[in-house]
Amino acid sequence: VISDGSAVLGLGNIGPDAALPVMEGKCVLLKKFAGLDAFPVCLNSQDPKDIISAVKIISPVFGGIILEDIAAPNCFIVEEALQNLDIPVMHDDQHGTAVVVLSGMINAAKASGKDLKKMKIVVCGAGAAGTAIAKILAEIAGDVQVLDSKGIIYRGRRDLDIFKTNLAKITNKENRKGDLKDALNGTDAFVGVSRKGLLKKDDIKLMAENPIVFALANPEPEIYPDEAKKGGAFIVATGRSDFPNQVNNCLAFPGIFKGALEVRARQITDGMKISAANALANMVKDPNQAKIIPGPFEKNVTEVVAKAVARTAMREKPQ
Amino acid sequence: VISDGSAVLGLGNIGPDAALPVMEGKCVLLKKFAGLDAFPVCLNSQDPKDIISAVKIISPVFGGIILEDIAAPNCFIVEEALQNLDIPVMHDDQHGTAVVVLSGMINAAKASGKDLKKMKIVVCGAGAAGTAIAKILAEIAGDVQVLDSKGIIYRGRRDLDIFKTNLAKITNKENRKGDLKDALNGTDAFVGVSRKGLLKKDDIKLMAENPIVFALANPEPEIYPDEAKKGGAFIVATGRSDFPNQVNNCLAFPGIFKGALEVRARQITDGMKISAANALANMVKDPNQAKIIPGPFEKNVTEVVAKAVARTAMREKPQ
Repeated sequence: VISDGSAVLGLGNIGPDAALPVMEGKCVLLKKFAGLDAFPVCLNSQDPKDIISAVKIISPVFGGIILEDIAAPNCFIVEEALQNLDIPVMHDDQHGTAVVVLSGMINAAKASGKDLKKMKIVVCGAGAAGTAIAKILAEIAGDVQVLDSKGIIYRGRRDLDIFKTNLAKITNKENRKGDLKDALNGTDAFVGVSRKGLLKKDDIKLMAENPIVFALANPEPEIYPDEAKKGGAFIVATGRSDFPNQVNNCLAFPGIFKGALEVRARQITDGMKISAANALANMVKDPNQAKIIPGPFEKNVTEVVAKAVARTAMREKPQ
Repeated sequence: VISDGSAVLGLGNIGPDAALPVMEGKCVLLKKFAGLDAFPVCLNSQDPKDIISAVKIISPVFGGIILEDIAAPNCFIVEEALQNLDIPVMHDDQHGTAVVVLSGMINAAKASGKDLKKMKIVVCGAGAAGTAIAKILAEIAGDVQVLDSKGIIYRGRRDLDIFKTNLAKITNKENRKGDLKDALNGTDAFVGVSRKGLLKKDDIKLMAENPIVFALANPEPEIYPDEAKKGGAFIVATGRSDFPNQVNNCLAFPGIFKGALEVRARQITDGMKISAANALANMVKDPNQAKIIPGPFEKNVTEVVAKAVARTAMREKPQ
């Protein structure tokens, strides 16, 4: 588990020393949920070049590497540069979150009578998590719009970096411009990975029938479930354990790494992530407003995800 | 515990993957002897610049760093560059060995009726261990000569690198030139950290009365104890556990790190090393031919060393 301490959940850029307890916690989760021995490494640099060379040079001793709490856009640069290490390297804040969001969205669609393949989804936040969520949803849903702090990301917007330019290519088919309200108009689902209070109950009224709201800013969501319901939300998910439908990375990353390591996969592919999301979604027999995703302490979550991931890894690259 | 796998004991330059079990073993020793939790890191580069920057960047998570099995002269460059990390950084192959050799030499002098301050000592081998042994002995003994594969190191020799040039400044007061026989003529003690079979029993006859022979090449010493005795050696030590007087790093490094960490020392100083050697030597109440150093499994070795090191650290820099 490797971090530069630049984007620690709820704390921001606190540096390597202060980030250590969080990485230690992550290691405990890997041990607890997946039986994997992990070691926390906090790096004394936030320069992607330094991070890449350090991870490369210390990699012989590790079976896999979880990147954690590294701010965008550096996290994209670092993760991509490390995909040829011959061991699985995954930035959990991106893909762990994206997998759980996808699994929740699969079941939210079922519970609300929508067809995910036709759904319009707004992702609010274009950091590490938002970018990965948008990418994985764009592979499956009807259309995805992504917003950053300046509004909807569209083809031709002047101030986009290379990562947002790439997002513009695969999202926003109607090439909408404007703010959150413009984006929400007629869409089926909102996924927030931005900041507290960003979504108002009146905004939800702009959305299509049976709107789905994933307000994942943590610890304070974009909108609290009671407010969202007042605005007409049909299904609400948050990142918090004290409300129904908690979107928790813990559902994904232990099983993804366990499955990948069991079959000695050399990378974590999109296929493996999608099969993890499907496996998670299938664990909920009868998805409804109160339950679209398994709880983190449900039995077998890690096992089910690991098996799905291992099976896909074997199918993709027979070894 | 950090290695580049370039100089693994008895195995040579085997690279990071093959070196891992040795580093894991070292971690087990630290846990067993000193109760310290250690993690093995094998680096995918043998370039000192890479090693230095990797150790610097991963250092926030560690309380101290043991460098291990890094070949000379890179080990000198790496160790020196890392002395300002604010945590103890020590290359055990150099200083762990040197501390145990010094402790053995203190007691060998007592047992053979010699005065260490006047003793002439030959160190055969100018790698990591030989260099550190020569330096620490030169601080205390009468004179030290060091030999590399080309013979005695003397001031003015043409082919010396910067490290051997520095050795020449503090050793070989008579500025002797020549081979091992020239060096041994009239000297009191031989310390071999070179290769098997290098010392013949007739060589020992050239030495002063009651000659002391530390034949530390491992697993096959420069001369076996029975041969050395035939040549007139008064005291013989080796690196092996199946002969008396085993010079084993295990006597030193766990206690040195335990003591340094207990008082949050920022470096391992020469003073701390010398106090470790004295503490070890004092554990043997009545040094004699059969016993000049404690055995690695004797009770309290680590505790005694740790206390001495901690005391010296506190005295050197009140905190």
